Amino acid sequence: MKASQFFISTLKEAPAEAEVVSHQLMTRAGMIKKLGAGIYTYMPMGLRVIQKVERIVREEMNRSGAVEMTMPVIQPAEHWQETGRFEKMGPELLRIKDRHGRDFIVQPTSEEVVTDMARQELRSYKQLPKNFYQIQTKFRDERRPRFGLMRGREFIMKDAYSFDRDEAAAKSSYQVMAATYRRIFDRFGLTYRAVAADSGAIGGDLSEEFQVIAATGEDAIVYCPGSEYAANMEKAEALAPAGPRPAATSAMVKTPTPGKSTCADVAELLSVPLASTVKSLVLATDELNEAGEIVKSQVWLLLLRGDHDMNEVKVNKLPGLNVGFRFASLPEIEAHFGSKPGYLGPVNMKQPVKIVADREVAVMADWICGANEIDFHFTAVNWGRDLPEPDMVADIRNVVAGDSSPDGKGELVIERGIEVGHVFYLGTKYSQAMNATFLAENGKPAPFEMGCYGIGITRLPAAAVEQNHDERGMIWPDALAPFTVVICPIGMERSAEVKAAAETLYAELMADGVDVILDDRGERPGAMFADWELIGVPHRVTIGDKSLKEGQVEYQHRRDAASTKVAVAEVAGLLKSRLNA
Amino acid sequence: MKASQFFISTLKEAPAEAEVVSHQLMTRAGMIKKLGAGIYTYMPMGLRVIQKVERIVREEMNRSGAVEMTMPVIQPAEHWQETGRFEKMGPELLRIKDRHGRDFIVQPTSEEVVTDMARQELRSYKQLPKNFYQIQTKFRDERRPRFGLMRGREFIMKDAYSFDRDEAAAKSSYQVMAATYRRIFDRFGLTYRAVAADSGAIGGDLSEEFQVIAATGEDAIVYCPGSEYAANMEKAEALAPAGPRPAATSAMVKTPTPGKSTCADVAELLSVPLASTVKSLVLATDELNEAGEIVKSQVWLLLLRGDHDMNEVKVNKLPGLNVGFRFASLPEIEAHFGSKPGYLGPVNMKQPVKIVADREVAVMADWICGANEIDFHFTAVNWGRDLPEPDMVADIRNVVAGDSSPDGKGELVIERGIEVGHVFYLGTKYSQAMNATFLAENGKPAPFEMGCYGIGITRLPAAAVEQNHDERGMIWPDALAPFTVVICPIGMERSAEVKAAAETLYAELMADGVDVILDDRGERPGAMFADWELIGVPHRVTIGDKSLKEGQVEYQHRRDAASTKVAVAEVAGLLKSRLNA
Repeated sequence: MKASQFFISTLKEAPAEAEVVSHQLMTRAGMIKKLGAGIYTYMPMGLRVIQKVERIVREEMNRSGAVEMTMPVIQPAEHWQETGRFEKMGPELLRIKDRHGRDFIVQPTSEEVVTDMARQELRSYKQLPKNFYQIQTKFRDERRPRFGLMRGREFIMKDAYSFDRDEAAAKSSYQVMAATYRRIFDRFGLTYRAVAADSGAIGGDLSEEFQVIAATGEDAIVYCPGSEYAANMEKAEALAPAGPRPAATSAMVKTPTPGKSTCADVAELLSVPLASTVKSLVLATDELNEAGEIVKSQVWLLLLRGDHDMNEVKVNKLPGLNVGFRFASLPEIEAHFGSKPGYLGPVNMKQPVKIVADREVAVMADWICGANEIDFHFTAVNWGRDLPEPDMVADIRNVVAGDSSPDGKGELVIERGIEVGHVFYLGTKYSQAMNATFLAENGKPAPFEMGCYGIGITRLPAAAVEQNHDERGMIWPDALAPFTVVICPIGMERSAEVKAAAETLYAELMADGVDVILDDRGERPGAMFADWELIGVPHRVTIGDKSLKEGQVEYQHRRDAASTKVAVAEVAGLLKSRLNA
Repeated sequence: MKASQFFISTLKEAPAEAEVVSHQLMTRAGMIKKLGAGIYTYMPMGLRVIQKVERIVREEMNRSGAVEMTMPVIQPAEHWQETGRFEKMGPELLRIKDRHGRDFIVQPTSEEVVTDMARQELRSYKQLPKNFYQIQTKFRDERRPRFGLMRGREFIMKDAYSFDRDEAAAKSSYQVMAATYRRIFDRFGLTYRAVAADSGAIGGDLSEEFQVIAATGEDAIVYCPGSEYAANMEKAEALAPAGPRPAATSAMVKTPTPGKSTCADVAELLSVPLASTVKSLVLATDELNEAGEIVKSQVWLLLLRGDHDMNEVKVNKLPGLNVGFRFASLPEIEAHFGSKPGYLGPVNMKQPVKIVADREVAVMADWICGANEIDFHFTAVNWGRDLPEPDMVADIRNVVAGDSSPDGKGELVIERGIEVGHVFYLGTKYSQAMNATFLAENGKPAPFEMGCYGIGITRLPAAAVEQNHDERGMIWPDALAPFTVVICPIGMERSAEVKAAAETLYAELMADGVDVILDDRGERPGAMFADWELIGVPHRVTIGDKSLKEGQVEYQHRRDAASTKVAVAEVAGLLKSRLNA
């Protein structure tokens, strides 16, 4: 490609609303253009990156045996009513009425449509397994779209759906996809981690997120450097402490802590480690009658070490709390504790509540908690002596760096990531809701065992930029770069030699299938270099009169601090060896 | 590809609602699957064809210098309000409100969005010309979607938009596209015709439709076998007859024609050729005041030869009628003619009307028309003698086969076509409405001169099938076929020799980049052949035990009546030479 034939449009300043670096740089480099909130035009420079992502995904999906199809963007509501998602999904589901007043939606995913297709087309176990995928426009009407392609309303997603005869076969299809995703993310050339994720109501361990590592990532992910263990924060297990609970060393004391309503304040006041304090979280669950009215409520007290945070996903799975919990109201708190938040604790309550202690809290001795009296805490509280053992001991906290890895192979490390892919075992959730069955080997109808597998095609470039950029702009891995090589001739109009050398190198690289762009716009060197550093093309060859007289050109990788002189005759070879490396 | 890895699903019967052969066959072959009215899933077999269409279009658009981008499917209404199309477009424009109640549309085309992009990005004449294109999902909420992919609601279109500094440059961009479209349609391997089309309010001759020729086509197209002349029916000019008007030969007579209210009936009754009769069409135009109320109406009488049909597009361009016409009401007709339709004519009217005679009628002598009295016609009517010369003589009819070609190089032939592409010079229609200007060489802002260029990506396969099918199924040209070659082994499970020969040929063709499918499903020969004939793969190699013992396999093109025996060693070479032919 020659730059004069292409469309290059860079900006010095990013729009004020661009909060994250990928949004700023992709806008400045003319890769995306905002049309409305969360709705972007993929400009020529950006579309090239997206198409490279698509090509890699398509090749590896095909290699895995998955079959490509395309489902409609605008879908009749009826299948979405079958699964109940038409009603259940909130305003994120964009709803439309057509000219006849019929209900439609814009697809956010396509479980319903693909399951409807399968129940018509896959009639026998002999046709299984099958995995169908599409690379298609999606829409989610986010309340606060932002961060450019990171959280848009319209976006492109690769979504795949596997259909199997039984759970074992579905798990094997899942494993094929998990391996395929590793190949895909390896080919992207990004630093990523596949982390175990919570599989929600489905249960089991068959849910993995593919996280692109970036300091700016929204997700905290957890891994063990000494092993294969990796999980997202929701999923990562905090093991029970190894040793037994120490013995109490002193008597419980009601200690004045005027105005100190947080564990941190209390620890500071008393000059003790934060880890000696216990925080009290008061939750409630409700029992409803058929009319949906609350018949009875149960108050729960969750106890966590002062330096730990509650993990909602884990709490949501505890017996009694897995019906859906809420934070208790002030009147409920006062009725049970006789005090206000900030000074609550499990000792001397007015009415009994159910007490859940985190595994860590359950083995603490001589701990500090609220005294259920404003401006007072108890110190040296001990289980069994000052209060009964807890009703339940469970892992209800987020892990922290330094925790033991659940596989016992070292300590956990926490880093930030951007979720770009997800593989998920669905079971029969959709096939049962839609009565999607096939004739099993025993001659009876059985519901499909399904899995679903997504990759955020337009999110991936944004994640790549969050991971790979510097103060001058983006830095693309070869596989994703809009162009792999840029040739920058200096003074091409003035110098026939420069022009000839540039054209010759361009022709040679083109003939070898290298994705090269020749910048023949006639820009001054400073502006030209600034453009390509912003755009982030990884390999640059500069051709100038002076070095050309010495038979040389300059090569610079986008990450190099300076350029290297290379003999004219050798530069194509150098580039090709670098590109294959 | 091996069939066992792919997804093949054929049906014996087409759905009852499939009225046209492409809809029937594409559904039966498992290429498309209806999700809702005019909304189809592109199944794996169909998507392969669509992707081949896309690839050809993309390659040739890129070669032409056009630059690919992708505009959003869901677009904010504001730009559509700028051009007035949000209000003007009927219910075909699918309108949406998002969660905040803001107006959006689903793109039917993207003139507004691309013009908005251009007015921000193209600031100087130095950046021109530019041609941007996208291959993207579109939606038109057709009142009666039907005919499968031929007239769907959701479809894929390639739309391109050129931006130029002046009319001459815009016309040159138009010509580049017209030439590019010829290359694209040549590569499809279909019989097509590029025909001049009406350019509506824009004027000029820069509008061409690309019509795939098919007996079932909706459009009548006109061409001259002896020259390059080709136009659609709306556009094709009917020349004025060459000779002068003959002299009158007899006196006008009021002749009883009881119950004969059509030209055909009258001609039959009087035993004269239909071409001796003249039909009367009564139109009206209205003058409106600022409140939109009718102030004054004008009645028009259009005279056409009995065997000719009115061409609305031509009439719409006549001075006085180009304000928008309607058919006259019964009271208007009675007030001006004193009679009812069926017996109207230009002689003995009650009130004067404006008379427009078709060029053909203007040179007739001794013609027959209604006498403005029920059950009577005049015969031997003559201009000048029996009535004044017409107020206007114009080409207001559709051409018929045998008319002289407007270029004088022979007679016109009429055939049917399916419009799949359109190139169109837009002028400044959108740039003026949206105040989209660039800085011209004279330093002043000037509106972009634009052109737009569409190809119906998902309509093309349907048109290809309308043109190429037989009683057994579809017949794809090599360039569009879902697979170019199918290998059909007979009894592959039983015979190691057959399996080995099939696998060897498959591997050889795959290595050469041939798009081949090996049918390893183990179907019986009859069912297997029926499937591939329905699907329409152009080249088939059958490998059976018997002929293999003689060192032979069978080759059959989908259009061949029977197969040909070919030596095993020669079949790959034969296929490759045929595919390059």
